[in-house]
Amino acid sequence: MTFNYPSSVSLVEVGARDGLQNEKAEVSTEQKVTLISLLAASGLKRIEAGSFVSAKWVPQMADSADVFARLAAFEPASGAQVTYSALTPNVKGLEAALSAGVSEVAIFGSASESFSQKNINCSIDESLRRFEPVVKLAHSNRIRVRGYVSCTLGCPYEGDIASSDVARVSRQLSEMGCYEVVISDTIGTGTPVKTARVLDAVMQHVPVNQLAVHFHDTYGQALANIHTALQLGVSSIDSAIAGLGGCPYAKGASGNVATEDVLYMLDGMGIKTGIDLSALLEASLYISDVIGRLPQSKVAIALRGG
Amino acid sequence: MTFNYPSSVSLVEVGARDGLQNEKAEVSTEQKVTLISLLAASGLKRIEAGSFVSAKWVPQMADSADVFARLAAFEPASGAQVTYSALTPNVKGLEAALSAGVSEVAIFGSASESFSQKNINCSIDESLRRFEPVVKLAHSNRIRVRGYVSCTLGCPYEGDIASSDVARVSRQLSEMGCYEVVISDTIGTGTPVKTARVLDAVMQHVPVNQLAVHFHDTYGQALANIHTALQLGVSSIDSAIAGLGGCPYAKGASGNVATEDVLYMLDGMGIKTGIDLSALLEASLYISDVIGRLPQSKVAIALRGG
Repeated sequence: MTFNYPSSVSLVEVGARDGLQNEKAEVSTEQKVTLISLLAASGLKRIEAGSFVSAKWVPQMADSADVFARLAAFEPASGAQVTYSALTPNVKGLEAALSAGVSEVAIFGSASESFSQKNINCSIDESLRRFEPVVKLAHSNRIRVRGYVSCTLGCPYEGDIASSDVARVSRQLSEMGCYEVVISDTIGTGTPVKTARVLDAVMQHVPVNQLAVHFHDTYGQALANIHTALQLGVSSIDSAIAGLGGCPYAKGASGNVATEDVLYMLDGMGIKTGIDLSALLEASLYISDVIGRLPQSKVAIALRGG
Repeated sequence: MTFNYPSSVSLVEVGARDGLQNEKAEVSTEQKVTLISLLAASGLKRIEAGSFVSAKWVPQMADSADVFARLAAFEPASGAQVTYSALTPNVKGLEAALSAGVSEVAIFGSASESFSQKNINCSIDESLRRFEPVVKLAHSNRIRVRGYVSCTLGCPYEGDIASSDVARVSRQLSEMGCYEVVISDTIGTGTPVKTARVLDAVMQHVPVNQLAVHFHDTYGQALANIHTALQLGVSSIDSAIAGLGGCPYAKGASGNVATEDVLYMLDGMGIKTGIDLSALLEASLYISDVIGRLPQSKVAIALRGG
């Protein structure tokens, strides 16, 4: 078998946003900034650091402006060229993000009509129309936009989602100007063959070097799916330090795939990332201590000692 | 990409042996038999149920003869044609296993010279010579023999192991008469490319339908590796209910890959196993309750409710 394995992979660290947004423990602005600085110190170059949404709906991200202000202050000192991004669902959020000095933003569409209706209260098409001015304003400020597609490998309301629906939304986000489209397994029900089928369909419309994958590890399938994406040539992968994003003791809770476990696989496969595993472990143990539980990463558990 | 995915897979359940052997909690004979009967009720047809080794070295398996006696008593009632196997390191162990009524036995060689010396106190070649009379006696009793090869994807003493060494030991076990050779990642350090390389080397000498894979999930890589083995056409997979077990030679030991998680992947890929996931969950929750911790299976955690 010959595969299109990439020689290097760009990891997008989403623990400080997608992860912490779904954790019950309170994490202070100071602690978030410490976490992000540890992540940057490990060699991560792309870090999702916050979300400019209503504090009423996502109280965990209410301090995102403060987080970005602090990041702007310490970044020059670190010397690293790190991209700190934020989720911006609308123009109002984007304006706040621009004021806070974000270096990249993300919007999020859904491949499932029911999920779109229940989650953002409008149809897929309407949601895409609402994103157009967001992308335009971002571009006029020389800010790149990433586009998430949720529920690509299953929907909590509809179950299976047609690959053609995923491909259509992906194409529209790409045509709208998103430099990268993120195929997301929101509920973690994806398995390898389905992953390959969906990616194949999307790749008919969006070049593989403009694709990323984002897996939740609810059913332990994330690494097998990521490996499948690598075989197809995908070279941009989302993950969250310590598998943040879901407490294993609560039903239905589903963390992101752990950055440590993804890195272990990539290192073992000889795929370059520029990230240092032992430095990453420091970040993992730090935030796990803050939220008061063990890392949801087998690599972190195995290597932490004790 | 076209793959040699098998249309069906035979799962070999090793939780009651490899799993419990490496758990600290005491599990009574009664509890083992209950576990095994729950496993058989889920549709598993191949269950490793014990080990005929010195009780001094492996006290957890000291009651294996009793376990098999109990299994022989209840099997006819269940109506299922289940193979209950046992590890037998030598002729003495095999004789005890035969008396206990086992339906299959297993022997275990190593691909690592250092591991062989430290684990069974002799060279690889010497260990293989010692197995010859075991295989002969088993065959003369119409008992099939499975041959494990340990440390195929890494050794705690030597690190990387040459694929050619794995292939040589695999070939020798096959030539000796083992009907199936089990490529085992004893310390869980394997990743997909290495897994494919080792399996490719072994498949030069042993037909793929006489190969099985056995992964520990110490670093979370097991499902990605199993998926790689499936792509190469391997259709026999070891796993342990609730991710039981761990390798005493690995720091931060973690268990075998969880049967539930493997089954979830196979079900999602449309690969038949004849096993019912909800019945399997009963076995998982039962033994996890007995040993006093949560299942080490993301699927079990996600589906158990509450």
